[in-house]
Amino acid sequence: MSDRTPPSASRHRLVVRGCDVLRVPLAGECDVLPARDIVVEDGVIAEVRPTVTDRPVEPGTELLDGRGLLALPGLVNAHTHSPMVLMRGAAEDVTVEGWFNDRVWPMESNLTPEDVRAGALLACAEMIRSGVTTFADHYFFPERIAEAVAGTGLRADIAPTYFSSHGQEALDATVAFAETWHGGADGRVTVSLGPHAPYTVTDTDLRTLADHARRLGVRTHIHAAEHLEQTESSLQRRGITPVQVLRDTGILDAGALIAHGCGIVGPDLPLLAEHAGTTAVACCPKVYLKHALSPLTPVRDLLAAGVTVAVGTDGAAGHNTLDVWEALRLVALTQKQAERDATWMTVSDTLRLALRGGARALGLQDRIGSLEAGMRADIVLTDLSGPHCRPLHDPRAALVYSARAGDVRTVVVDGRVLMRDGRLLTVDEPALLAEADARVARILDTSHGRAVQHYDP
Amino acid sequence: MSDRTPPSASRHRLVVRGCDVLRVPLAGECDVLPARDIVVEDGVIAEVRPTVTDRPVEPGTELLDGRGLLALPGLVNAHTHSPMVLMRGAAEDVTVEGWFNDRVWPMESNLTPEDVRAGALLACAEMIRSGVTTFADHYFFPERIAEAVAGTGLRADIAPTYFSSHGQEALDATVAFAETWHGGADGRVTVSLGPHAPYTVTDTDLRTLADHARRLGVRTHIHAAEHLEQTESSLQRRGITPVQVLRDTGILDAGALIAHGCGIVGPDLPLLAEHAGTTAVACCPKVYLKHALSPLTPVRDLLAAGVTVAVGTDGAAGHNTLDVWEALRLVALTQKQAERDATWMTVSDTLRLALRGGARALGLQDRIGSLEAGMRADIVLTDLSGPHCRPLHDPRAALVYSARAGDVRTVVVDGRVLMRDGRLLTVDEPALLAEADARVARILDTSHGRAVQHYDP
Repeated sequence: MSDRTPPSASRHRLVVRGCDVLRVPLAGECDVLPARDIVVEDGVIAEVRPTVTDRPVEPGTELLDGRGLLALPGLVNAHTHSPMVLMRGAAEDVTVEGWFNDRVWPMESNLTPEDVRAGALLACAEMIRSGVTTFADHYFFPERIAEAVAGTGLRADIAPTYFSSHGQEALDATVAFAETWHGGADGRVTVSLGPHAPYTVTDTDLRTLADHARRLGVRTHIHAAEHLEQTESSLQRRGITPVQVLRDTGILDAGALIAHGCGIVGPDLPLLAEHAGTTAVACCPKVYLKHALSPLTPVRDLLAAGVTVAVGTDGAAGHNTLDVWEALRLVALTQKQAERDATWMTVSDTLRLALRGGARALGLQDRIGSLEAGMRADIVLTDLSGPHCRPLHDPRAALVYSARAGDVRTVVVDGRVLMRDGRLLTVDEPALLAEADARVARILDTSHGRAVQHYDP
Repeated sequence: MSDRTPPSASRHRLVVRGCDVLRVPLAGECDVLPARDIVVEDGVIAEVRPTVTDRPVEPGTELLDGRGLLALPGLVNAHTHSPMVLMRGAAEDVTVEGWFNDRVWPMESNLTPEDVRAGALLACAEMIRSGVTTFADHYFFPERIAEAVAGTGLRADIAPTYFSSHGQEALDATVAFAETWHGGADGRVTVSLGPHAPYTVTDTDLRTLADHARRLGVRTHIHAAEHLEQTESSLQRRGITPVQVLRDTGILDAGALIAHGCGIVGPDLPLLAEHAGTTAVACCPKVYLKHALSPLTPVRDLLAAGVTVAVGTDGAAGHNTLDVWEALRLVALTQKQAERDATWMTVSDTLRLALRGGARALGLQDRIGSLEAGMRADIVLTDLSGPHCRPLHDPRAALVYSARAGDVRTVVVDGRVLMRDGRLLTVDEPALLAEADARVARILDTSHGRAVQHYDP
């Protein structure tokens, strides 16, 4: 269709030429369309058509050579705490309790808004390099994260982390952040309200935040039933599960992205199913393995109940990377083992979970998650020609089980090229890395004995 | 010491200048020595000394700039079937039985010696790129693999796969291969005898091969107790476990590298402990997860019994890559979870397992596994400066949990540079990839109904 529209000085037109295109249907097998041109107008995919190499291009069209590359929808990191890259590798080989109380929550009490800005930018650089175009964030000083997203060109849903111990002013600030930033950065920033967890936020505050979410037309993003011990503790202390708390306080009704959910139990499933349209669970298996948790997120039960499941990394203080390739591979591997069924969580289902599921988990399924006309142009060009992917019998299997973040060559978000042939265009990477290094010693110092919170779920 | 030795035209001298060096002690924490020169003479590490940048070098010395890079001992892939890269991605989402009987063993009946040569070369390219300098292989047409190792400059222990169904001639050929190739390629090729498994090789043949191994001074490399169902089946069919079969037939006495061992049970441990000096178990967790197996290799029990444990990938028809970074990370993650103990299999212990354990598993602990004077110069220069590794609080944690195969820059084996700054020097990669592609359609065709063996353990 775009060929019949006359060129316009104010319109931005981008054509990715000659790439193969991964198709991820809502059900059934994924497949690859060979040799396509993806035509993008003002950030939206106008057309995906068979390539014609000698077709003349309109003057002013930005061209990307996609030949030999596979285009896929940008990866979605459905749960992270992006600025925690600053604490990467600083909390190893410890228990969950030690991780929170001895390492992470004391370190987080050192953070300044400027630390968060630098951390978020570093996280954006890492995510662009690995083909993550959208992330669901949950952290302090969310304005600094939103600015980093706006500046680097990524897409994010940002939830300001809220503990009840931080008081009314903090609660007001999270609501004000949502009022200011939801729909910001040309629509690339959306906001969710971010009560930390049912064990750190009172029922009263959860109710208040659910009311605000409904009023503002945003959702919530919350840790809940992170592992079975939390569920058992909740049952023991108050007689109901964490998911029942979310139901009772209106959080499910407002719409919730639930992080982890390894402790979701049978009676929770009908409650989640009842709100399936606006409820999702983000599965981040690397941290569950590393923290020696069992069972894992009950993905099969959740999908059977109609609940959206997506793939996340959690923060890099636990996951060590923000690499969604690694995360989706671990979802496939751990789910096969957990269910003792090698034939489920197939390569097509895994890609669907990561791409379609990720989009839906953030309420963005009408904008991202597939490369079709009308969708925002979030495109990742991946090179599967390296020896670790060859021979390339099955590109879907290569994406799930062989490809690495380093195979991403070019990244487009909203029609804007953020990385071209491995070169970042919106981040001054050397300056950023030097700045991050300079901030580290102060952040790691926990000799003061402070902490943002005490872990006792 | 090398400074006092006069230069000689016949001597090859290599200096890696200014790198940091990972130290992996036999017990305790790993650490990093900053800014070292590694001096190599005729393939042997002569000295690791603090760097002096203005020190003049002897004429004829080959120099590698290691500044900003971390040198580690070459990774060891302790169990693989290298030519199976040709079947990468061709057996997805199937049961163990389906994998063997419907996919892999029928495809393997198509293989020619030339296929194996091409597959082994492709595997070598992938392994060099990812910093694997030594691998324990187990496959058909082992001469072709040995030639690939000789030509590419890697180091390998090669076991010719033997099934009793293939008869006396095949058995004689495996022994002849050991006689010809053990100690070949300037000592870089060693040989183990390769009975496939106790369920595909008769006790008589196991005894014969154990006798040959002792006579030749080589070991055996065998699949055994791959998963618990095999152990249960062995107990049911013959009243003893697979490890007891290895003991009774003299295989343990001859020295055995046991692949997988997920089905090793309590009564097996004293038998393995008795032969701990020459017995090792290779753990390849990606394939166990993918094949939905549980439990995993009992690494904690094996180490407690004094048995060497090493890290492998298995063949790429299951593992999809030959990436030991991925494998060692999964060992750490899955072992923490399996033991429900986040504080064990620490980053130092994981690196020791992969490096020292790998060397010992192949009987090469006097030659490889650490960067010290007197060891063969198998050196991997790794770049941890990417955003996914930064800030670099703890290089050990970065190696285990953040680094990727693509972070390997330069690879040296036996003092010879096989990859420099990401460029392979001993493999014509484009020609090889094209050749592998051309061989694939015939190898994947299973319409003939043949198979190398039937799986019924």
